[in-house]
Amino acid sequence: MKNSSLIIGRQPLVEAIESGRAIDKILFQRNVSGESIGEIRKLAKQHNIPIQQVPPEKLHTVTRANHQGVIAFAAIVQYMDLQQSIDHIVGSGAIPLFVMLDGITDVRNIGAIARSAVCCGAQALIIPDKGIAALNEEALKSSAGALEKILICRVNSLLKAIDILHLNGIKIFATEMKADTKVFQLDFSEPCCVVMGSEDRGIQSYIRKASDQHFTIPMAGDFDSFNVSVAAGIILYEAMKRRM
Amino acid sequence: MKNSSLIIGRQPLVEAIESGRAIDKILFQRNVSGESIGEIRKLAKQHNIPIQQVPPEKLHTVTRANHQGVIAFAAIVQYMDLQQSIDHIVGSGAIPLFVMLDGITDVRNIGAIARSAVCCGAQALIIPDKGIAALNEEALKSSAGALEKILICRVNSLLKAIDILHLNGIKIFATEMKADTKVFQLDFSEPCCVVMGSEDRGIQSYIRKASDQHFTIPMAGDFDSFNVSVAAGIILYEAMKRRM
Repeated sequence: MKNSSLIIGRQPLVEAIESGRAIDKILFQRNVSGESIGEIRKLAKQHNIPIQQVPPEKLHTVTRANHQGVIAFAAIVQYMDLQQSIDHIVGSGAIPLFVMLDGITDVRNIGAIARSAVCCGAQALIIPDKGIAALNEEALKSSAGALEKILICRVNSLLKAIDILHLNGIKIFATEMKADTKVFQLDFSEPCCVVMGSEDRGIQSYIRKASDQHFTIPMAGDFDSFNVSVAAGIILYEAMKRRM
Repeated sequence: MKNSSLIIGRQPLVEAIESGRAIDKILFQRNVSGESIGEIRKLAKQHNIPIQQVPPEKLHTVTRANHQGVIAFAAIVQYMDLQQSIDHIVGSGAIPLFVMLDGITDVRNIGAIARSAVCCGAQALIIPDKGIAALNEEALKSSAGALEKILICRVNSLLKAIDILHLNGIKIFATEMKADTKVFQLDFSEPCCVVMGSEDRGIQSYIRKASDQHFTIPMAGDFDSFNVSVAAGIILYEAMKRRM
């Protein structure tokens, strides 16, 4: 993360949040207190910004400036509200095609997935506020700029996000090694959201259970599986083909 | 590259090559001479191993051992002869599906492409001996072991490799931004080799000219293009679908 994205001190952070600047994460020095800390907590809750308590040494490794026990990382992308994004996309006459990232930890995979999403006409990425790689400069570079061309909805619960998608008539498609349905048999012509699981453990079981349809990418070789960004590319390519 | 893959000194290198061990690259200290150096040059030529002349400092950064002006990096994969590989694959009753990498410089992209190749039933990767990322530990890790499950043919000229493929009735398919043919219109049921170009400059024009068919991956969004390993995954997936 470049230093330009660093916000140091209490008042600068309050002003940044109030001005609408998207914040990736706030670091509080352990046991920090004061009126403005309460205000920051309140604003963070309102704006869905994760707070992490860290020892003083951690803050010192980030900056030597007078940080008053508070620093934050500004996001280099703008986060959007999920319901507002759905309204915007449906209002423009498009059929929602979303990608939900359930804990992708490699920035380069996130970048490549964003790139495929834009190539294939997906309109939004849905990401959790924790357990996912930061959408930093490296992710932006890996995405060849795609992260700036797609709506990014950051949510504090993927399950709640699935509820919102369901209320808006958007189906959830999740990969599952032993599913009978093949990716090319899915009906991508309807509003849908594809869930991609993390590189090592796949999609979390409670997310898989909340999904409407499970599918698999067929494989010719007796081999583990595709890289997650390649798998996402193949799925989105099938969605695009169906919609063309 | 791990130290275990390092070969230090003249006699150890001669023995390694003669024992059939695959060598990625030989580094000669500039102006090094002697009888065994001539022998190494001859063996390198026979076995298609690139030699690089470097200043003494370069060798010192690699090892402090008594290297006698010669070090080499052993390959962690076994390189195969192209014609022998074709004979082996055709002999086993399979229809050749190859992937030629024209200068992919990112080890992680190579790893991901190898993984997709194995998943989709491709039998061999064809790589040039220069201008391509080393097939090192990181590439092997990125490939989730796939680099050990596919034949790897290293050639000193991709153009000569295309001649060999043509003589064996194998068609060359190359991506081309403005091609009319879409990837799903290609006849992957015939023996074929897909060429993937480098991340920044794509396929070299003389390779493109020597190709039999040019095609494009369609795109919904007004955007640059897919990541090269994602593009390879989509192409190989289409080939697999056609062959299933």
